[in-house]
Amino acid sequence: MAERLVPHFQEELQQLKTRLLEMGGLAEDRVRAIVQALVDRDAATADRVLAGDGPINQLHIEIDSRCFKLLALYQPMAVDLRAIVSAVKINTDLERVGDLAINIAEAVKRYMRHPPVKELIDIPRMADIAQHMLRDALDAYVRRDTELAQAVLNEDDALDALKTQVFRELLTYMLSDPSTIEPALDLILISRHLERIGDHATNVAEDVIFMVSARDVRHHARDSQ
Amino acid sequence: MAERLVPHFQEELQQLKTRLLEMGGLAEDRVRAIVQALVDRDAATADRVLAGDGPINQLHIEIDSRCFKLLALYQPMAVDLRAIVSAVKINTDLERVGDLAINIAEAVKRYMRHPPVKELIDIPRMADIAQHMLRDALDAYVRRDTELAQAVLNEDDALDALKTQVFRELLTYMLSDPSTIEPALDLILISRHLERIGDHATNVAEDVIFMVSARDVRHHARDSQ
Repeated sequence: MAERLVPHFQEELQQLKTRLLEMGGLAEDRVRAIVQALVDRDAATADRVLAGDGPINQLHIEIDSRCFKLLALYQPMAVDLRAIVSAVKINTDLERVGDLAINIAEAVKRYMRHPPVKELIDIPRMADIAQHMLRDALDAYVRRDTELAQAVLNEDDALDALKTQVFRELLTYMLSDPSTIEPALDLILISRHLERIGDHATNVAEDVIFMVSARDVRHHARDSQ
Repeated sequence: MAERLVPHFQEELQQLKTRLLEMGGLAEDRVRAIVQALVDRDAATADRVLAGDGPINQLHIEIDSRCFKLLALYQPMAVDLRAIVSAVKINTDLERVGDLAINIAEAVKRYMRHPPVKELIDIPRMADIAQHMLRDALDAYVRRDTELAQAVLNEDDALDALKTQVFRELLTYMLSDPSTIEPALDLILISRHLERIGDHATNVAEDVIFMVSARDVRHHARDSQ
């Protein structure tokens, strides 16, 4: 791009990053709120999460249009081009995380119609890990930090192990006491949704590695661990 | 872009579309094969699906790199720019459909360790609808056909209704006969995976509408029906 355009481009790219972090923060807040609502059996918070996807959806549209504007106006090359296309993808991932908070909220509402199956320990841990992965992946994007991105990829195994553990434990409850079948099913679905939030963080981390190094780790990352 | 570049761009865009259709075909074949394997209790096919994501992953990387090349080399504007950025997104959606075929295959393998819960009717119907949605969404992309894209968005409700029906029916089995709990759980997970394939087709359809009309239907589509 023409040299006189570079400062404007960098400024707008900075704004784009700020908006992505803001969106990531909103998505994370929603996940934290709904898992806390599950633990506290707090229907009012679950309803707020169900009704509250407006701001994320607004940001989703705004960030997408910023990306198109940057591509059309500045015609960036190499790492800058990859940064913008990555932003389009990351934006999609964050919006999906927002949707998953709604899926979790629906399951939480159903879950609360029954007595609690058990004390919840692993599901809040899964939520912590997923939120952490998401935050680190976005930090890695903003700082173009491939080491941090790689750390996010490594964390996915912990989430996967917890998901399997949750599944096995709940299955035991269901088999020994049929009255737990319905609420346990919802806990299993919630754990799957949390796993998918981790998958979105993983997507972001893979985009960061590709953006910085133009190295595509997407179909190798898991083999190399 | 410079006028002399236009014919090359259109040619390369055509190739990109062909590759996307090819990838869509592969993804669809995998979904069809694994649901047939579920119906036929065919472990060999399930194993083939589990092992066979190489070609899709290869295409995923190739299509992404074609998109970057087109953006960097031709610096397209307006609808052409949106077509390339949409291709990046659609490519991601198709790769996820390939991953979902693997998730289904894992559930199919577990399912086959137990006697069948019931004759499967709704799950194959869900698979048919999801595949159909995917094919139509890709055709809509290639032909820039917003009417067809809108038809895909409308079909999502049928898939959602079937998913709810499958869930309720299987819950009845689980509650009345605990020996069905494990296999019924896998059928529920399979129906969720199929629903997500429909979600990916929906994403593609929304991208098509945005590409053609620069109108963002993503957070309105479902309200307007």
